[in-house]
Amino acid sequence: MADCLLGIDLGGTNIKIGCFDTTLKLIGRISVPTDAEMGPDFIVDKFYTTSKELLKQNDLSLADVCAVGIGSPGLINLTEGVVRAAPNLPLFKNVPLKDMVAKRLGKPVILENDANAACLAEHTIGAGKGSDHMILLTLGTGIGGGIISDGRLIHGPSGGAAELGHLIIYPDGRTCGCGQKGCVEAYASANSTAARATEAIQDGAPSSLAACLKEQGKITCKDVFEHAGKGDAVAKEIVEGTAKALAMVCAQLTNVTDPQSIVFAGGMIAAGDVLLTQIRRFYKQSLGHLFDRESLELCFATLGEDAGIIGASSLALAVCQ
Amino acid sequence: MADCLLGIDLGGTNIKIGCFDTTLKLIGRISVPTDAEMGPDFIVDKFYTTSKELLKQNDLSLADVCAVGIGSPGLINLTEGVVRAAPNLPLFKNVPLKDMVAKRLGKPVILENDANAACLAEHTIGAGKGSDHMILLTLGTGIGGGIISDGRLIHGPSGGAAELGHLIIYPDGRTCGCGQKGCVEAYASANSTAARATEAIQDGAPSSLAACLKEQGKITCKDVFEHAGKGDAVAKEIVEGTAKALAMVCAQLTNVTDPQSIVFAGGMIAAGDVLLTQIRRFYKQSLGHLFDRESLELCFATLGEDAGIIGASSLALAVCQ
Repeated sequence: MADCLLGIDLGGTNIKIGCFDTTLKLIGRISVPTDAEMGPDFIVDKFYTTSKELLKQNDLSLADVCAVGIGSPGLINLTEGVVRAAPNLPLFKNVPLKDMVAKRLGKPVILENDANAACLAEHTIGAGKGSDHMILLTLGTGIGGGIISDGRLIHGPSGGAAELGHLIIYPDGRTCGCGQKGCVEAYASANSTAARATEAIQDGAPSSLAACLKEQGKITCKDVFEHAGKGDAVAKEIVEGTAKALAMVCAQLTNVTDPQSIVFAGGMIAAGDVLLTQIRRFYKQSLGHLFDRESLELCFATLGEDAGIIGASSLALAVCQ
Repeated sequence: MADCLLGIDLGGTNIKIGCFDTTLKLIGRISVPTDAEMGPDFIVDKFYTTSKELLKQNDLSLADVCAVGIGSPGLINLTEGVVRAAPNLPLFKNVPLKDMVAKRLGKPVILENDANAACLAEHTIGAGKGSDHMILLTLGTGIGGGIISDGRLIHGPSGGAAELGHLIIYPDGRTCGCGQKGCVEAYASANSTAARATEAIQDGAPSSLAACLKEQGKITCKDVFEHAGKGDAVAKEIVEGTAKALAMVCAQLTNVTDPQSIVFAGGMIAAGDVLLTQIRRFYKQSLGHLFDRESLELCFATLGEDAGIIGASSLALAVCQ
């Protein structure tokens, strides 16, 4: 009986595939390098061979698979199942990924944006469980987002909704990779947090990060949080800037979709309470008195790196039924 | 046969009531002062007497009415039909308006936020017709909003969504009536546009508005647009500030819900093309290169003052069926 699901999380660096039963219980997972430079056909073939390997490891075969869900970065045309463009997968321009995978694996396929898939996973069984109005912000190299309103993902007509990293918080501010100025991604992503620290050191700010930059040749976001934790004033200021930028976006979003919870995911949440406490503090400071926004829960995601494959498989469940 | 609908637009100053057939064709309308200081019971009674009068004027009676829709300012609990709070109706605190009107008029009643009702009207038969993804911004004393995504209004769990006047565009900027700093309402509402002009004159800016302020004792938003139209540099700068603030909010909103159109309504759109052209110009300037946002249509509402009663009656239609 075909009663298992495959959830594929296509990343710029790795492909993760999870095999789940129809209650979304994980049966097994596997991760392989994406080799993005090899292009879509190669990657679809890798989906096939890696899925077969994962299934075999768990005494299953493709015959046991009911449907496949894929979370892909970039702009997705959901109706047609096409990856329109993805900054981290330069060879993916208008790629009909849904049809390609359906043909190669011989299964029904559903394609979704990766942040939306992760948002759906946190909504279904993670930090946003029980909340029909939630927002996910993924804090990694860039900042991605997903919005659930009234229990449904908001996509917009062309899949261009929830590009939350590109909300402008400082007009005419830092230039973002998207070409706009002052986007939250240009301040509060892991890369931008590291970049702001690097710039401060290069401008001569007295900090323990200076030695770090000299030794390693670069500063990472993790370094910034570590040095802030040890009391370095410059690192603390950079971390505050990141938390404040994120709090400002939370304030914006409450006035648009009025979520019950905003869930932070991605590598940066490894920083832990020091980040969350400060986001909450700056958020409270920004509140007006007219609206009841204090009940908004700001919290961390709970599904970690599995969110992508869980979300993708929960979508697969929908085409299975 | 009960086949007509009443749409009530409850404003801080006036109550407008429209009588419609089930194709939303206007049969007749009436407007009376709200007398907000008389409180909810008085106003509900006024709904009753004014509705009867309107129906009589059109050779109809309450027996012909199928259902009643109400658009009310403020925060609305939709499920319970309660006006939780409304800045322009200070006596409306947790008023069960839906049940009160249902009892007084003996009809099914549906209650909605007024900007949402207007948004629904423009979506159904106005400037947003044919667009399942649209946003309405009402530019009046304050700035209100409504969001339609995938054909449905976004309310949030407690009716607190689409408070679009309170999107912060300038961090630590002008203080808004809501208590936040830098809200778009503090720059681009009719009142704030007039206030910014007044402050500029009081700071000694050389402008033809100075004489206007001296003569009238105050400057209105209309004055600012008129003097800008005649070439006054200060007035032009104020108008540009208003247009830029609105464009910035449009840029924010495209990254959240990705609308196909943003429709401007309210008294300020009487300013005409000079306003719309500038909003479009600033919006284009703010765009990045990563996302296809150029297809967004920025336009004016077409239903004028009837939007509120049309939206309310279209809601009534839903409870009629």
